[in-house]
Amino acid sequence: MQERPLILVTNDDGITAPGIRMLVEVMKELGDVAVVAPNSPQSGMGHAITIGKPLRLVDSDIFDDVTAFECSGTPADCVKLAKHYALKDRQPDLVVSGINHGSNSSISVLYSGTMSAAIEAAIENIPAIGFSLCDYSHNADFSHIREYVKSIASKVLDEGLPKFLTLNVNFPKKQEEEIKGVRICRQARAKWEEEFEQRFDPMGQPYYWMAGNFVNFDKGEDNDEWAIANNYVSVVPIQFDLTAHHAMSVLGEWEF
Amino acid sequence: MQERPLILVTNDDGITAPGIRMLVEVMKELGDVAVVAPNSPQSGMGHAITIGKPLRLVDSDIFDDVTAFECSGTPADCVKLAKHYALKDRQPDLVVSGINHGSNSSISVLYSGTMSAAIEAAIENIPAIGFSLCDYSHNADFSHIREYVKSIASKVLDEGLPKFLTLNVNFPKKQEEEIKGVRICRQARAKWEEEFEQRFDPMGQPYYWMAGNFVNFDKGEDNDEWAIANNYVSVVPIQFDLTAHHAMSVLGEWEF
Repeated sequence: MQERPLILVTNDDGITAPGIRMLVEVMKELGDVAVVAPNSPQSGMGHAITIGKPLRLVDSDIFDDVTAFECSGTPADCVKLAKHYALKDRQPDLVVSGINHGSNSSISVLYSGTMSAAIEAAIENIPAIGFSLCDYSHNADFSHIREYVKSIASKVLDEGLPKFLTLNVNFPKKQEEEIKGVRICRQARAKWEEEFEQRFDPMGQPYYWMAGNFVNFDKGEDNDEWAIANNYVSVVPIQFDLTAHHAMSVLGEWEF
Repeated sequence: MQERPLILVTNDDGITAPGIRMLVEVMKELGDVAVVAPNSPQSGMGHAITIGKPLRLVDSDIFDDVTAFECSGTPADCVKLAKHYALKDRQPDLVVSGINHGSNSSISVLYSGTMSAAIEAAIENIPAIGFSLCDYSHNADFSHIREYVKSIASKVLDEGLPKFLTLNVNFPKKQEEEIKGVRICRQARAKWEEEFEQRFDPMGQPYYWMAGNFVNFDKGEDNDEWAIANNYVSVVPIQFDLTAHHAMSVLGEWEF
């Protein structure tokens, strides 16, 4: 009998979030599961890593029959600690991150702790997937996406991924209509338009709350925002080479 | 007389770092300068933003004749606060970040707070440059790069940048030989290979120090690592569309 694959599960909402619990349950059907996840919410941490202070890593028994650790660091730290310490003797065959409570589509991929864990795995050339549900509530309904999570992870286990790539998978919020299917997409051109609200603390000192409105500039139908808005699962292949190769020839003409 | 451009200066080493002081001095020769920078070191913060807690923004008089604020948030927060709050009445024509004490070449662009500020500006379609010196010491010698910083910023002010792009500029550490010139490069294929050292606190509980070794897999001569190692300034055009467009057709054949 072939050995079952080892699947590392992490997230950015923290080890107690319902989304990671669902992901662990589904991954147990596909392989041996290990969890290294943050001990506190890490939303918006982008690709932060912990420099200049040490990390804590503590055994956790919150998942049945699963080796799990909670970590004081960021999602990217979790993957580094898993690969180079906790799972040093048996490397993961797949890294899955999520299921995030909220969208990580379009520009949010940059701010996303969920996706930074998946990208960190891609840097290590381990196939990886970040899963996000476009529903920010703690008690979000994940039932309609369970089979999709399983089939996408299963496909990546069977086929692998192109070298150094990871997948950014976003699911529409549960609706009456069933999800229409899966679309391979590009990242939509959009941004968060921030507003800052000034308030004053009891000592009379100002502080500022950041509140963002998502603004989608993209009129195409081949991007992740369109897919999600039309009740499809969006799958965007993500790379960590940020070079704008097309701009090199333009800049090459400059004299300094 | 034409109005002088407004240049926003930020960094990730914090508002008191020598690198930002040098950058402010050089930018004052090119335009009006405003500073919004972190009140504490933010190295390795990647593209983190502050979610779920408020930000502080306090006037600072540490630079002569320059409007400056120190911010409790990340470099990306600083750019957001500058654009949407502190500089709301006059938008910057250029955003410069740095000069970082240490390299942000190759894969380090992902972990870099310096570059996240520049990328945040690019998202807002403001021309932006991240400057880093490949010398981690607090008392690094910046004298050999002063003219390059000025000429690169001046060039970007004159020519602009291709839409939604920013520049990742890394300078070699000061050597006896003068810098040979500027090279337009791609991001080298490399990674940080982590090691974790376990120690025990006075209560007997374990903690872990992360220590990374930079491993360069790239044999090319058109990448930033090669340029820096050969005493050139590396300039990499950086984009925030992470879509691996070349992989979309491969994934398009998959059935879920």
